[in-house]
Amino acid sequence: MAETMQAVVKADANPGLEVQQVPIPTIKRDEVLVKVRAASICGTDLHIYNWDSWAAGRMHPPVIVGHEVCGDIVERGSMVETPEIGDFVSLESHVICNQCAFCRTGLGHICENTQLIGVDRDGGFAEYIAIHAQNAWPNPKDLPLEIAVLQENFGNAVHTAFAADLRAKKVLVTGCGPVGLMTIAVARAIGARSIYATDISAYRIDFARRLGADLALHAIDDPVIETIRDATDGDGVDVLLEMSGSPSAIDQGFTLLKRGGEAALLGVAPGPFEFDWDNHIVFKAARVLGISGRKLWQTWYQARGLIRSGAVDLAPLVTHHYKMEEFDKAFETMTSGESGKVMLTP
Amino acid sequence: MAETMQAVVKADANPGLEVQQVPIPTIKRDEVLVKVRAASICGTDLHIYNWDSWAAGRMHPPVIVGHEVCGDIVERGSMVETPEIGDFVSLESHVICNQCAFCRTGLGHICENTQLIGVDRDGGFAEYIAIHAQNAWPNPKDLPLEIAVLQENFGNAVHTAFAADLRAKKVLVTGCGPVGLMTIAVARAIGARSIYATDISAYRIDFARRLGADLALHAIDDPVIETIRDATDGDGVDVLLEMSGSPSAIDQGFTLLKRGGEAALLGVAPGPFEFDWDNHIVFKAARVLGISGRKLWQTWYQARGLIRSGAVDLAPLVTHHYKMEEFDKAFETMTSGESGKVMLTP
Amino acid sequence: MAETMQAVVKADANPGLEVQQVPIPTIKRDEVLVKVRAASICGTDLHIYNWDSWAAGRMHPPVIVGHEVCGDIVERGSMVETPEIGDFVSLESHVICNQCAFCRTGLGHICENTQLIGVDRDGGFAEYIAIHAQNAWPNPKDLPLEIAVLQENFGNAVHTAFAADLRAKKVLVTGCGPVGLMTIAVARAIGARSIYATDISAYRIDFARRLGADLALHAIDDPVIETIRDATDGDGVDVLLEMSGSPSAIDQGFTLLKRGGEAALLGVAPGPFEFDWDNHIVFKAARVLGISGRKLWQTWYQARGLIRSGAVDLAPLVTHHYKMEEFDKAFETMTSGESGKVMLTP
Amino acid sequence: MAETMQAVVKADANPGLEVQQVPIPTIKRDEVLVKVRAASICGTDLHIYNWDSWAAGRMHPPVIVGHEVCGDIVERGSMVETPEIGDFVSLESHVICNQCAFCRTGLGHICENTQLIGVDRDGGFAEYIAIHAQNAWPNPKDLPLEIAVLQENFGNAVHTAFAADLRAKKVLVTGCGPVGLMTIAVARAIGARSIYATDISAYRIDFARRLGADLALHAIDDPVIETIRDATDGDGVDVLLEMSGSPSAIDQGFTLLKRGGEAALLGVAPGPFEFDWDNHIVFKAARVLGISGRKLWQTWYQARGLIRSGAVDLAPLVTHHYKMEEFDKAFETMTSGESGKVMLTP
Repeated sequence: MAETMQAVVKADANPGLEVQQVPIPTIKRDEVLVKVRAASICGTDLHIYNWDSWAAGRMHPPVIVGHEVCGDIVERGSMVETPEIGDFVSLESHVICNQCAFCRTGLGHICENTQLIGVDRDGGFAEYIAIHAQNAWPNPKDLPLEIAVLQENFGNAVHTAFAADLRAKKVLVTGCGPVGLMTIAVARAIGARSIYATDISAYRIDFARRLGADLALHAIDDPVIETIRDATDGDGVDVLLEMSGSPSAIDQGFTLLKRGGEAALLGVAPGPFEFDWDNHIVFKAARVLGISGRKLWQTWYQARGLIRSGAVDLAPLVTHHYKMEEFDKAFETMTSGESGKVMLTP
Repeated sequence: MAETMQAVVKADANPGLEVQQVPIPTIKRDEVLVKVRAASICGTDLHIYNWDSWAAGRMHPPVIVGHEVCGDIVERGSMVETPEIGDFVSLESHVICNQCAFCRTGLGHICENTQLIGVDRDGGFAEYIAIHAQNAWPNPKDLPLEIAVLQENFGNAVHTAFAADLRAKKVLVTGCGPVGLMTIAVARAIGARSIYATDISAYRIDFARRLGADLALHAIDDPVIETIRDATDGDGVDVLLEMSGSPSAIDQGFTLLKRGGEAALLGVAPGPFEFDWDNHIVFKAARVLGISGRKLWQTWYQARGLIRSGAVDLAPLVTHHYKMEEFDKAFETMTSGESGKVMLTP
Repeated sequence: MAETMQAVVKADANPGLEVQQVPIPTIKRDEVLVKVRAASICGTDLHIYNWDSWAAGRMHPPVIVGHEVCGDIVERGSMVETPEIGDFVSLESHVICNQCAFCRTGLGHICENTQLIGVDRDGGFAEYIAIHAQNAWPNPKDLPLEIAVLQENFGNAVHTAFAADLRAKKVLVTGCGPVGLMTIAVARAIGARSIYATDISAYRIDFARRLGADLALHAIDDPVIETIRDATDGDGVDVLLEMSGSPSAIDQGFTLLKRGGEAALLGVAPGPFEFDWDNHIVFKAARVLGISGRKLWQTWYQARGLIRSGAVDLAPLVTHHYKMEEFDKAFETMTSGESGKVMLTP
Repeated sequence: MAETMQAVVKADANPGLEVQQVPIPTIKRDEVLVKVRAASICGTDLHIYNWDSWAAGRMHPPVIVGHEVCGDIVERGSMVETPEIGDFVSLESHVICNQCAFCRTGLGHICENTQLIGVDRDGGFAEYIAIHAQNAWPNPKDLPLEIAVLQENFGNAVHTAFAADLRAKKVLVTGCGPVGLMTIAVARAIGARSIYATDISAYRIDFARRLGADLALHAIDDPVIETIRDATDGDGVDVLLEMSGSPSAIDQGFTLLKRGGEAALLGVAPGPFEFDWDNHIVFKAARVLGISGRKLWQTWYQARGLIRSGAVDLAPLVTHHYKMEEFDKAFETMTSGESGKVMLTP
């Protein structure tokens, strides 16, 4: 095996990324080394690329970026019992401590010592990545790369959609980026009665319709409140799945939420904002759920079930393919709003 | 309007039924009079027809039988605000007191003063039936009779399937009578990963396959335990939906249930039986849920959602049609095990 | 019986109230007439007294005010089966429709046609009140007036405290008005591990300590965040019970809330305000529950259980007694922040 | 340190135990060595002592027995980060694999590869025990030995009592052995309205009363059904906590359970038995929960909360103290039914 590899690196505290030749990582006794077969770009990666305040406040360059990754196990530490060398795995991006009270009570997804690959430690836009063995989720050998690589991100959609009870319910998905789109597919698979969706990209509004949204509207140009009220006999929706982080979309979503409704929130807002607490939560007796990451590892089992039964087909979500060294073009595509998921291969 | 009507009556404490000419019922101020358009036969009706010990212990003839009914509102009492004259309605068969602690806490389905139409008071195998207004559930005018009449019974399937979390789970349905068959359709609609089913009628095993069961087995002739263990990589199932009431099917189901699994029980056993308490519930940390009737009226809303979204199509469930006066042939068909639901029209 | 009675009336759209001689109400066939024995003043009544924008936007004077009421049944309509003439009852203040989808699914507390006595229809600061029979909750004959009259308001505390899981948990109660104080008592009764409380009235902070708060702090003058962090080994609290409606208290509460924590919100804010959505809910994976009124009638059963077992003693909560005609003094006492509940008798 | 130690050993496949001098265990890199300060006897130990069919079917002598243990950490493996040398710890008795699907989804208490100390591997009726570091739960240095040693068993009580909602509810505890007694104390601490208890030992019935049971009855000699029906105004109980494993107590408990009630089952029956499925679960819409061990490690946190807040005082539960070499007398005391917990010290 070579001693160095190609990697996409946030080299210093500035916008942009660069391809570097770096040492192949060495593993600890509870880790595995994964030869990367594919990676995909997440919204978080855009923040890192642009070096916004969130990225600047959290990251300590140099760091290899990328946290949506699949590949083959090529080496494993002395304590690793599973998976096996040669296994084709997808990676859970949150490396957790297994020691804190959260980890010890089945809440590892909110572990207080979480390290996110590609952010807090080296990630997977590279030829190899070292990661804790428990983060490597074995796939069938013949699982298409497009599906394998999306599982981490799909987990966000599954976690959000499974947080509320969607069965026979009217559901609004605010935000049709890739996770929002996958959430629509999940909502359809688990028996939502009607699915309404909003976004501000015509491309994604159209994508939402193709994935099963009964109505997909432009959040600003269309009369969202009136249209969805009409479509629901004036009732509004039972469930809000908030994937946008946009304060105005959040306000629209809660305005449409029925009394006693449920709202699951994955979207991250740009900062604090003014919110109508009384009418949107208190008087309405709403149940509001913050969603963070994926449940470790319930969500992975659930995602596997949806994929294997054929209830959700992730393949159409990957709309663009690039080589890793073409990362600039890949990020540009992702930023345009005219894409689903963008996949990178070494 | 005429003063008498044709009705199928349990005339005295003996097996069989007869058609009689009886007075059209008069309504109380909180009741409606429904002109029956269709009715269907339930397993309970077979017990009544055969006058088994359950029927003999509970009924006080003469009683007009039949509790799965749809029709049109033709008259309403002075206090009734909804539904309207002319509305096409399906009937909830449990007339509840609205006064007991169960009714006052959202648990009307276990009201301690419940009266079941066709059992404790006159039912709907007749030209007309009087019933409390809240038991009349309005349908779209153009809902097919086959679907309208099945909603009550479909509610049992929905109540059972919604009691557990089936999303991305492996599910076993023991018993493929009409309610079991509808349960399979619901499980499929709300995202079950795999559905296994058992029965002892070849006709119904085949029906189960057509409704979406991944595997449908003969409970006695097939090696059920081994086959389902194999199909689940040795794990067994996450959820048992018990629709048979057969002690041996119950034992099979719990044997296949995984640790931490859920079992929802609608099937009624012929009497007390020997059960492996420790291995089937305690050590397994199983969650076992008795299911009674339908939730009033959550289940009706859920059933409506599944029907209107197209997630479940009930029409194929009705396999036979008879005139009410042909009730003997209809009951014979139902008893044969070679039918889905059997519908009667006045 | 006389034909008129004394009542405290919001006579026109201005601040203040007045005592008037008005007709004794007549009852409908599903109502009862209650001879009032005691009433108590709620925060809502202060809004009405002061005729703030909420009151001006909702009420249509003239209206008899008062919604915390107990008394004796002296007459009942023709359809009323329970309670009996002579029963000593406390009143649920929300008159609900029993017809809407919420009422029909056990969610009457968010009925979309609710009428609140003393606000939307005549209330109980009067000698008599007419109300739907189901709103009259029978008490033991010997229940002290102080406890009987507080049950409605106590229901808010029970509803809020029961919404989250407090067992063996660290709990913060923000706002120690009467409902906040009762919430502390409930939290203690159902097994909270530690109870922290904040308010801005020294009187109520002291009251909180006497009712079982482990720490009671001044929300502005004390270093709340540091003190509670220290008291919880840096962890913060598992549960926030928000009873103040103060944006700064809400911010403090959510800052102290642990990841994965639960927040139940009864306090009503003065209007929309800036809120740190990402850090307070999304990243934290918080579960946030709007609380409205009391569950009809689960909360009443729960309140009864706590009272009868002796787990909660409400008597000390009533700190002041006045005759109804002394309502000005009573409202002044309530406004001062130097009181628990203020009781009025005809 | 010496090389051998005293231990109570099941030496061969026969009734009885014996004291032996055995090697002090060596630890693996993820284990700790605990110098035992106290142990206590569990019902399971009686089965082992008597070498009944369960014990004979599961154990492979020679095995050091004992699984309720506390002591000090004297050595730790190279990978252990916590606890520290010198920490005073109580032991969780189930050594789990951390690899199976149950362990990976927060359900370690039903891990399919569980090893129980004192049964499947060497236990703690000895001077030293080696155990996985995560099984050593740190206590405050000054926690009384009686409390420290009981925590494992107390966890069964907490797990059972927390499985249902006891707040303001009427609760029946069938079986007042030590776990049943602790369950009564927990039910009282978390707000049960009334607690009824049954047993067949006068000593334990009396103990139940002292711990807060409102009524404690002899399961055979007292008219249990009638007495508890009377005490509950004919309603029966909301919750059954089944700690006896006695088929007749189970039948009594379910007979008294209200419709819609909850039953948590910890008691292990001697084998399959005849059970009235329809009336006890199906028609009653009961929710029945098998309880296994303790939740790892939620139950430990909950137990800690109840102990530290003073809500439950475990000290009175330990009624007898013996030296380990007096194990014969200790087991005799435990068998008599005239004891609470029996504690052993090296």
